[in-house]
Amino acid sequence: MTEPRTVWWEDGRVRMIDQTRLPAVEVILQFGTVDEVAEAIESMRVRGAPAIGVTAALGLALAAQAAASKPAAAFRAHLAAAAERLRRTRPTAVNLFWSIDRLLLLAEAEPDPARAAARLIAEAQAMVEEDVQINRAMGRHGAALLPERGGVLTHCNTGSLATVGYGTALGVVRAAVASGKTLHVYVDETRPRLQGMKLTAWELLRDGIPATVITDNMAGWVMRQGRVQAVIVGADRIAANGDTANKIGTYSVAVLARAHQIPFYVAAPLSTIDYSLADGDSIPIEERAAEEITHVGGQQLAPEGVTVYNPAFDVTPASLITAIITERGVAQPPSPASLARLIND
Amino acid sequence: MTEPRTVWWEDGRVRMIDQTRLPAVEVILQFGTVDEVAEAIESMRVRGAPAIGVTAALGLALAAQAAASKPAAAFRAHLAAAAERLRRTRPTAVNLFWSIDRLLLLAEAEPDPARAAARLIAEAQAMVEEDVQINRAMGRHGAALLPERGGVLTHCNTGSLATVGYGTALGVVRAAVASGKTLHVYVDETRPRLQGMKLTAWELLRDGIPATVITDNMAGWVMRQGRVQAVIVGADRIAANGDTANKIGTYSVAVLARAHQIPFYVAAPLSTIDYSLADGDSIPIEERAAEEITHVGGQQLAPEGVTVYNPAFDVTPASLITAIITERGVAQPPSPASLARLIND
Repeated sequence: MTEPRTVWWEDGRVRMIDQTRLPAVEVILQFGTVDEVAEAIESMRVRGAPAIGVTAALGLALAAQAAASKPAAAFRAHLAAAAERLRRTRPTAVNLFWSIDRLLLLAEAEPDPARAAARLIAEAQAMVEEDVQINRAMGRHGAALLPERGGVLTHCNTGSLATVGYGTALGVVRAAVASGKTLHVYVDETRPRLQGMKLTAWELLRDGIPATVITDNMAGWVMRQGRVQAVIVGADRIAANGDTANKIGTYSVAVLARAHQIPFYVAAPLSTIDYSLADGDSIPIEERAAEEITHVGGQQLAPEGVTVYNPAFDVTPASLITAIITERGVAQPPSPASLARLIND
Repeated sequence: MTEPRTVWWEDGRVRMIDQTRLPAVEVILQFGTVDEVAEAIESMRVRGAPAIGVTAALGLALAAQAAASKPAAAFRAHLAAAAERLRRTRPTAVNLFWSIDRLLLLAEAEPDPARAAARLIAEAQAMVEEDVQINRAMGRHGAALLPERGGVLTHCNTGSLATVGYGTALGVVRAAVASGKTLHVYVDETRPRLQGMKLTAWELLRDGIPATVITDNMAGWVMRQGRVQAVIVGADRIAANGDTANKIGTYSVAVLARAHQIPFYVAAPLSTIDYSLADGDSIPIEERAAEEITHVGGQQLAPEGVTVYNPAFDVTPASLITAIITERGVAQPPSPASLARLIND
């Protein structure tokens, strides 16, 4: 391993950095069962659509490993139950379902449980490395879209920690900086869980890329002041027409960018595109616990008995998106045709 | 006193509820010196433009009381120093300067220190009661603008706690509900200090007005879902053309409201209008400490060494404001002419 990974396979176990403890401490977790992995996804110890996808694959590999010596029927039942458990963790990021289906398809092609388990473990490990390669390709395609110099606003965390390494939208920023561009990143803190302030700012500090953290409600004002020349975000699920589900607040940023005539880019691997959905209306939106909003750092800040609305994602219509950047190229503007071309070429 | 007040004069002292302790505990503070009052304004134990204005008047009354037995020249010097101390507390809310000037003018008209002190104390106390009357008048004028039923989005706290009592924008909501309208309030939590979640939600719970707290970055999404029929906010300073400085994030909400064709109202007393400024460009914008963003509830959440931008206010151009509601009537649309009419009629 040449650079740090967010999640990986080691000695028959799944390891990951506990993102709920960052930036205060760097804790590496180690899991031997699919239930532990599923819990880690639910509690967002690992988050970010690509990272969730790879983690689910590694979780399923654990299940295959555990059942490798069982009879074929029992092996398959065990695998199916593990897949079901993982599918129930988080509904919006489609990479989760894509990863699970990819491994199950492989298992179906191999009747022998021990050989199937070995293949699943190898495939999940390949997906770990593949993710970084995909992100670097996305970076190459996207870097050209960012300005030579100026401010780039990001939302949530789309860096190494949202993936296995390098990042999607933040990977594009990294690639642009590596190519010599002079960028200053405005980091939306991204309530309620503050992944921007806790994770993105941490990554950018380590990389030495100039960055300023703002509260989410400052995005419009920094745009109005002329500080932002481009917005780039990740995605949790993209419909066939380009409508994009991403971390709550993305839609507001897209509307603000349009009002200030600032280009708005989405960077995501092809595994994030759900070609089965014509548009974003039918993307399921996860609602999470009220405590994510009412409590910060374990401390209750809201008055007792208050009502809270906590959708984890929103949907930005394709019409507000300048381009979608993938590892196979750029769909600009995003449309059913431009997005279909990426997988058909 | 028939209803709770945010700040008042009692037994020769200034009393106020400590808003930095809400909603966890209700602590009443008691101050005998202008320095203590100035510190309370700076540390936002009392906040909200109208409340700051009245508090500054009460602080100046304390100074007058303390110097009442001094010779005239010493009395005036003491008063001038106290005014200077208060003026340095917070630069954006113009009500602060308006209140101080109002009392100083009164002091100039009365050569005898003891009599001048008595007049200042009486005037400051009158301003306490006047503030509530102004807010009730604003409520009467504004209530008609809100829909018969529907969602109303608010930002920051503009209720009893932002004033002496009843509130500006929240006062309009209260008046509309009292007149029989069926409203549901969407409360922006309002980072960094969370006055929406901590104070507005607390007030609405006590009043039994249905309310839902959202993070600031959800405002666009709840608008897109059709949940919001009107936005109403307060103001810290309004230029002669209607450009409005208010809590950071207000500008983003105004842009989002316009994009969704939702009316955007500002409710503020005439003392918030700075007729000396042609437009909002020259309104001074206070920047506050980075810790307001990086720390929540005393706990550091951001990585060490991160750069933060923390403007406490932004400016919404008059072109995005449907109407400005005052105690003397409504400027709709806001313009130099419609705003001038309010004081000239």
